[in-house]
Amino acid sequence: MERAVVLLSGGMDSTTLLFHVRQTLGVADIHALTFLYGQKHARELAMARWQAQAVGGTRLAEWTLAMPDGVAAASALTNPATAVPDLAAIPTDERDQPITYVPNRNMMFLTLAAAYAEAQGIADVFYGAQAQDEYGYWDCTQTFAERINAVLALNRRRPVTVHAPFSTMTKRDVVRIGRTLGVDYDRTWSCYRGENQPCGACPSCVERERALGDCD
Amino acid sequence: MERAVVLLSGGMDSTTLLFHVRQTLGVADIHALTFLYGQKHARELAMARWQAQAVGGTRLAEWTLAMPDGVAAASALTNPATAVPDLAAIPTDERDQPITYVPNRNMMFLTLAAAYAEAQGIADVFYGAQAQDEYGYWDCTQTFAERINAVLALNRRRPVTVHAPFSTMTKRDVVRIGRTLGVDYDRTWSCYRGENQPCGACPSCVERERALGDCD
Repeated sequence: MERAVVLLSGGMDSTTLLFHVRQTLGVADIHALTFLYGQKHARELAMARWQAQAVGGTRLAEWTLAMPDGVAAASALTNPATAVPDLAAIPTDERDQPITYVPNRNMMFLTLAAAYAEAQGIADVFYGAQAQDEYGYWDCTQTFAERINAVLALNRRRPVTVHAPFSTMTKRDVVRIGRTLGVDYDRTWSCYRGENQPCGACPSCVERERALGDCD
Repeated sequence: MERAVVLLSGGMDSTTLLFHVRQTLGVADIHALTFLYGQKHARELAMARWQAQAVGGTRLAEWTLAMPDGVAAASALTNPATAVPDLAAIPTDERDQPITYVPNRNMMFLTLAAAYAEAQGIADVFYGAQAQDEYGYWDCTQTFAERINAVLALNRRRPVTVHAPFSTMTKRDVVRIGRTLGVDYDRTWSCYRGENQPCGACPSCVERERALGDCD
């Protein structure tokens, strides 16, 4: 594989994926796509820029996605009037689709990435989805990626394939891979609140600390 | 069904669909979505506006979609430097994915529409795809809609369903339905070239004239 598209948020999973594609798969020409969609933690983009530079062979495209009416309002990640909850404050029976879920966001990201890849003549898109332990999103699962591929496979000339190699791993597994590849996790961002310092209590911070702690 | 999203281009199929949803299904509150994506035939939007007004019970949302780099350049529908060919000039062996195809456009449209519907609490999206006789697009097939639904069905709280009731009909069949519903086809636009008058020779004009001629 000479060329690939990588969805890069600047978080731990997608950064590890970038290094995996570059170093383990040896892809020479990587198009990393990162999205500004109104997320509170837009500071993750600075990390994406840094990592794209660090890994080499990567051109970073920053895209602004104007979300359809109502989408931003529906999520604590994007609605200024909705606080990001601590993980501990999310009821167990809401953790399958918590308030931090953004309606159909990842299908939008992958669909735009697939259009880009097809137009550029690139056959492979890499997606860093990873199943969390304590909460989850339907659009981060292996089945989701497989069904997206079932759609894209219908393309009669230039089908694009989505690869989600971490989707059945734990975050700890992902970090183990990243450490062997020299990923600098201090230059990744996880906290959903997006303030100057990570809060340490939101779902994303808790998962991050567990994954890093288990590896140290 | 009280509420629905309808993808409305201002062409024959989606206009017929709008009338079908409003009159036959009796949906009271329709959100019609129409896209400006750099198409040469953007004059179809004026038709969408007229039809949304004519059918009643419909609010029209016009969305501008910034296409990923390279997508517009890849299609005669959007690249000013690429002429829209006459249907007769498209080689038979290219008609399964002709130069008028826009990379992954319809998956982008449906994905954005599904995000909107989910955020608005609307469960049903209607899509006017119709298989052409002389040429075709993978993203206008019944199988495409079914596989999109297989993705959306994974949503754990608010799955959205795409309905494509015309996807196995001929365009003549669609026009027959529209005539019974009082659709004014003079107020629809098909020509891909988008000049002041329909060219009569592009793929979309040829299909239109055949469908209307067979019904008159």
